[in-house]
Amino acid sequence: MSQVSIKQLSSDECFELLKTQEVGRLGVIVDGQPLIFPVNYIFDDRAIVFKTTIGTKFTHASLDKVVFEVDSVEYASHTGWSVVIEGVARDITNAIDNISESERNLQFNSWITNDDNHYVRIHISSISGRRIS
Amino acid sequence: MSQVSIKQLSSDECFELLKTQEVGRLGVIVDGQPLIFPVNYIFDDRAIVFKTTIGTKFTHASLDKVVFEVDSVEYASHTGWSVVIEGVARDITNAIDNISESERNLQFNSWITNDDNHYVRIHISSISGRRIS
Repeated sequence: MSQVSIKQLSSDECFELLKTQEVGRLGVIVDGQPLIFPVNYIFDDRAIVFKTTIGTKFTHASLDKVVFEVDSVEYASHTGWSVVIEGVARDITNAIDNISESERNLQFNSWITNDDNHYVRIHISSISGRRIS
Repeated sequence: MSQVSIKQLSSDECFELLKTQEVGRLGVIVDGQPLIFPVNYIFDDRAIVFKTTIGTKFTHASLDKVVFEVDSVEYASHTGWSVVIEGVARDITNAIDNISESERNLQFNSWITNDDNHYVRIHISSISGRRIS
């Protein structure tokens, strides 16, 4: 009915949108197979940090090249946006010196909590986004 | 406040949930880098089919091993589910004989339409899902 338009978002727009969501999707390669894990995350103006219990598969993932996707979609109006980050992930659970005060104090509204929690930080190499309206 | 519980979903439960959504996230590997593309999809009881204009990056993706993720998240109640499919993707745009009647007649509520549309079908190798409540 109406015309669809796609707009590329600026980095600043992407960063602002990252702050509005709590769940993103981590893409990694495990033994040559791409995998996607939904995770709770926070964005602290310099990196994505998430807490995970995604288990053994994740421990075999290459963290040197990861992708992280966040989106928000409104089905009724067929509008939405997505932000895609490429970066390097590091398990920071045992590197407390590398964890910022804000990260330590994070109130993760985590849906998944147990003793195996790991903290992972994604350093952003590139960010892009688009809005469909 | 309340205890979080994670429940693994059966294949049948996953299939039913796939029918409830319109947008999923395709994970592929392009030149050693995992990438995620949000796409409009339909699930026709045997495969995921989506229409895409995701462009040059996608044309360099390995389609022999892909992942496809669909989820639904309710922030207020911290509940949700996710389904993850591993499979093989094939561009079926030029293989009309392989496109089923139902797929040809699909009413894709596609948010992205232009002349470069490709139809891609994912044959499901494995499916898993979980619900958090």
